[in-house]
Amino acid sequence: MATLIIGATGGIGGALARGWPEEALWLSGRDTERLDALAAELKATPLRADLGYESHIKGMFGGLSLPLDTLVYAAGSAYPEPLNAATPEAVRSVWNANYFGALWTLKYGLAALAEGGRMYFIGARPELVTARGFSQYAASKGALAKLLEVARIEARGKVLTLVLPPAVETPLWTQVGRAPKGAISAEAVAGAIVADRRGAGQPELRVA
Amino acid sequence: MATLIIGATGGIGGALARGWPEEALWLSGRDTERLDALAAELKATPLRADLGYESHIKGMFGGLSLPLDTLVYAAGSAYPEPLNAATPEAVRSVWNANYFGALWTLKYGLAALAEGGRMYFIGARPELVTARGFSQYAASKGALAKLLEVARIEARGKVLTLVLPPAVETPLWTQVGRAPKGAISAEAVAGAIVADRRGAGQPELRVA
Repeated sequence: MATLIIGATGGIGGALARGWPEEALWLSGRDTERLDALAAELKATPLRADLGYESHIKGMFGGLSLPLDTLVYAAGSAYPEPLNAATPEAVRSVWNANYFGALWTLKYGLAALAEGGRMYFIGARPELVTARGFSQYAASKGALAKLLEVARIEARGKVLTLVLPPAVETPLWTQVGRAPKGAISAEAVAGAIVADRRGAGQPELRVA
Repeated sequence: MATLIIGATGGIGGALARGWPEEALWLSGRDTERLDALAAELKATPLRADLGYESHIKGMFGGLSLPLDTLVYAAGSAYPEPLNAATPEAVRSVWNANYFGALWTLKYGLAALAEGGRMYFIGARPELVTARGFSQYAASKGALAKLLEVARIEARGKVLTLVLPPAVETPLWTQVGRAPKGAISAEAVAGAIVADRRGAGQPELRVA
C-alpha cells in the first residue's frame, strides 16, 4: 500500500507520517532540512514541493513510483491579520497552503490514485474559525470544502474526505500565540485518519 | 450621495451604473476604452483598476474625492474548467475578480465609507453553482461569503450586503456558451440593489 503525505513537516502531517502503518511512504514539505530528516527517520521518500507552484506539485506526483492508495493533504497556514491590515504575503501564504495547493493536488493526484484509493484533506469547522483576524483562514478552508464538493461530482467514485477536527495543538498556533483551550493533539487527528482509512470511506470525517 | 461601482464594465455593473440614482458616481473597470466610454456617457469619473493588484485598488480609493455612501462590488469571472484541466491563468482570473479584489476592496474601502455607508458584493447561490466545471467559481463565491462574515465581525456596525441572484444574463456567460434558462436580467439585479439601498440594510439580499 502506497501513501503520500503532503505537509509532512507540519503538526498533523508529522504525526500522520510517524503513525502511518503503510510501507511505501512519500513525504512532501517545503523545508528541505526537516523533510529530509523526517524521511530518513521513517525510511520514507522525500519529495520537496512549494505548494504555491503548480509545477512543484506536478513534479511531486512525477516522483512517485507507485499508484497511491492514500493521499493526505495536511498542509495548512493561518497567519491571522485584521482585514484593514491584510498583507499580500500573509494572504498568499494562507491561500497557497490551504487552498491552491489542494487544487493542484486534485488536478494531478486524482490520476495518481490506485483503484479504491482515497484522499484526505484537513479542513476546519466553520463555526470555530469565523472569527476576528481569521478571514483568510476561514475563507480558504470554506473554499476547500466547496472545491471537494465539485471534485466529487467531476471524479465520481473517488472518495475525497474532508477532515474536520476541532482546534489542534500544532506549530501553526505559534503564528497566533498559543493553541486555544481544549485543542486536541495532532496524534489524535492522525489516529482518526488511520482508523477511517480502514473503513468504507466517507465525505466528511469529524474528529471529536 | 457618492457611489463607487467596481466592475462597472460588466453586465451587472453596467446595468447598475446606468440605473443608479446618485449624482457623484465613480466607475471602476479594467478595460480602459469601455470604462472611459461608459463614464463619458454617464458623466461619471472613471477609475481604472486591475483587481488582481492590491496597489491598483489602493490607488482606486485614493482617486475618490468624497466619502462613499454606497460601494457595489460587481466584478466577476467564471471561466469554467474541469479540475483535471485547470490552468493557473483561468484560476487566477476567477479568484482575482471574485475574491481577492473584494478582499483589497474591504481593506481600503471600509475606511472610505461615509457614516451610514453601505457595501454590496455580488455572490452566488451555492446550490446553483456547485456543478461540474465550476469549482473555482463556486469556491471563490463561497469564500467571498465567508470573508464578509468575518468583515462584519471586524467592522461592527457597517452594513455589508451579499447579493444572491439566480443566474443572470451577462457577458460572463460567453465564457460558458450561453446563459442558463430562467436567467434574469442584469437590470433586475441592479433594480433590486437600488431598492435595497433605500431600506434599512441587510446582510443578504436574495434577488428572485
